[in-house]
Amino acid sequence: MIFFDNASTTKARKEALDVFNNFNENYFYNPSAIYKNGQEVSKLINKARADIINCLGGGRFDNFIFTSGATEANNMVLKGLLKNKNSKILVSIVEHPSVYNVAVDLKNQGYNVELVKVKSDGRIDEEDFLSKIDENTALISIMHVNNETGAINDIKRLVSLAKSKNKNVIFHCDGVQAFGKVKVNVSALGVDLYTISSHKINGLKGIGGLYVKTGINIKPLIIGGGQEKTLRSGTENTAGIYSFATTCKLAVSEQEEKFAKTTSLKDKMIKGLEKINNVKINLPQNENVSPYILSISVLNGKAETILNMLEDKGIIVGNGSACSSKHKDNRILSSMGIKMSEIEGSLRVSFSSNNTEEDVDYFITEFENVVNEYLKSTNRRN
Amino acid sequence: MIFFDNASTTKARKEALDVFNNFNENYFYNPSAIYKNGQEVSKLINKARADIINCLGGGRFDNFIFTSGATEANNMVLKGLLKNKNSKILVSIVEHPSVYNVAVDLKNQGYNVELVKVKSDGRIDEEDFLSKIDENTALISIMHVNNETGAINDIKRLVSLAKSKNKNVIFHCDGVQAFGKVKVNVSALGVDLYTISSHKINGLKGIGGLYVKTGINIKPLIIGGGQEKTLRSGTENTAGIYSFATTCKLAVSEQEEKFAKTTSLKDKMIKGLEKINNVKINLPQNENVSPYILSISVLNGKAETILNMLEDKGIIVGNGSACSSKHKDNRILSSMGIKMSEIEGSLRVSFSSNNTEEDVDYFITEFENVVNEYLKSTNRRN
Repeated sequence: MIFFDNASTTKARKEALDVFNNFNENYFYNPSAIYKNGQEVSKLINKARADIINCLGGGRFDNFIFTSGATEANNMVLKGLLKNKNSKILVSIVEHPSVYNVAVDLKNQGYNVELVKVKSDGRIDEEDFLSKIDENTALISIMHVNNETGAINDIKRLVSLAKSKNKNVIFHCDGVQAFGKVKVNVSALGVDLYTISSHKINGLKGIGGLYVKTGINIKPLIIGGGQEKTLRSGTENTAGIYSFATTCKLAVSEQEEKFAKTTSLKDKMIKGLEKINNVKINLPQNENVSPYILSISVLNGKAETILNMLEDKGIIVGNGSACSSKHKDNRILSSMGIKMSEIEGSLRVSFSSNNTEEDVDYFITEFENVVNEYLKSTNRRN
Repeated sequence: MIFFDNASTTKARKEALDVFNNFNENYFYNPSAIYKNGQEVSKLINKARADIINCLGGGRFDNFIFTSGATEANNMVLKGLLKNKNSKILVSIVEHPSVYNVAVDLKNQGYNVELVKVKSDGRIDEEDFLSKIDENTALISIMHVNNETGAINDIKRLVSLAKSKNKNVIFHCDGVQAFGKVKVNVSALGVDLYTISSHKINGLKGIGGLYVKTGINIKPLIIGGGQEKTLRSGTENTAGIYSFATTCKLAVSEQEEKFAKTTSLKDKMIKGLEKINNVKINLPQNENVSPYILSISVLNGKAETILNMLEDKGIIVGNGSACSSKHKDNRILSSMGIKMSEIEGSLRVSFSSNNTEEDVDYFITEFENVVNEYLKSTNRRN
């Protein structure tokens, strides 16, 4: 199968599995135990933490909390920084469900939650953003790279705008589709919290974490034995954590090279798609879009049917966000002003550096066949 | 090293790792994706779920939610069944921190939380238990096997007593130290919810789950893409889940044989310990104690020093609950009426079926030497 759904999940790389297996063999002890073998594991976990903070460009005293993944980390942020129901939470309308749905839940509980609009390029509408920040705004959560469109927000600028209007505001950024793919430096961005995930960058599933700048007091979501300085209890997924650090180091060291390769693959695909009738690219492709994600629509198409026809040709693509594809909504594309008739035929093509130019050539040929076949058959029916 | 701290964590068995590696190689797709490869993974996850429900003796329509571990599952229960601050939550004073500390946190938030006492054998004081159940009692959480003492509660009887006093009460049982070690059948026990963990039974860390009887409406702790029928969002730790099911099936199929082997190891150890001066076994050893856990005290000893001296001899034991050993408290043993002078020298010896009779012989010899050496050196100082 040619896999173009890498924004949904990726295959774990060999190094990630090797480290995992080795750790389970040699360091299975509980890091909370006071004996030497346990303490050695505890030190290795802290080495992994330091390595990841380093990958993120965080400072020496900054913190990083290991969680079971990005969804848990995002839940922790939205629920763990609440003070009272009057303080305002601001999230964008295109956030991942692990931010958006928590925000909606909080709103239903009576919290003061507001949604920031995006423009037709999928990026934050700065005017709307600024107008919604006031002295009551306690927390802002804006994603770095959108998971359906690839739109990259200028987080550095948004943090600066937000803090100049209210210096006490806490800024969280969901960096799941950014980290390891585009350049990320949390210190330069100025964010207070930043979420990352392992399985989106060819690491294992079930592990992720949250960067927390020194001085940000977040409450735990999961309470118990007091692991992670009481911020995340539960016996640590030690082998997963150590494997995650290896994955992060590799992803960051290869980031520029892979960015260039993916950019070239995506450019090639766009050139091919532009020649196919009834196919539309859903947002302007420029330096403000990740090379890893391409949102397209088959005009008057039904995404699910086309996706199945492509799978029969040995090609896998996604339809919108895989994380919520069973519960399909049109929140993200519709918030960009895209028509329903185009949304219904929308597909997400997402790359990894494992994809090749031949994959793209094959995709273009087969995709054109599928689109023509599909439209012919629906025309016959009409 | 001879490892007698198996209640803290265990080394993952080969089968658990093999399944994990194979799954990552062949089934890395996102189970939320609508294409066939994704749906195949979704079916495998549901097969793992059915296998685990079967291992637990749950009914056909019963549910099981995969979580990142038992601590998350216990947090989910205590926070996810709350209705209002008047409804009462009852937990025992000897619960694991992932229940106890959540209960304390809820009490601090103004919820009506009461603690049930235990008797000197570490088991629930039934008189106290019954006296604290009334029409406002909404949730009871009582562990199956205590993690520090091995005391086994008669969960079936406690459920029956509780429901005969208030038929609407929801009964949760933390089965982390029971499942795969003693006989567990959730239907026969009559519990509404039951927590289990992978890494305590030679499975991988970072995976566990919660049995939820049909009809029990629990709220999610982690919200997002709607995985696990919206009860636990986040991309599933698919390989971890499938490996967990394998671990459970093996543990249950081997349970009786390993129970017998561990019983014989523990009996041998008790006989050896009874001959050592200044060593006390902290609770009566009978059919109401798990063969996997033995709580002992060195009279006038300091546990940490003795534990380190043992480690120098190549023996690892625990001091109380490893899950909270960095934050040592005396809650469990002191609630059983054990004197502080004995608590300070308390050690937890916990077995696995990987331990041998030779391990026990070596332990007895070296432990006697260590105790004598320790007491001689402290007497010299005094």
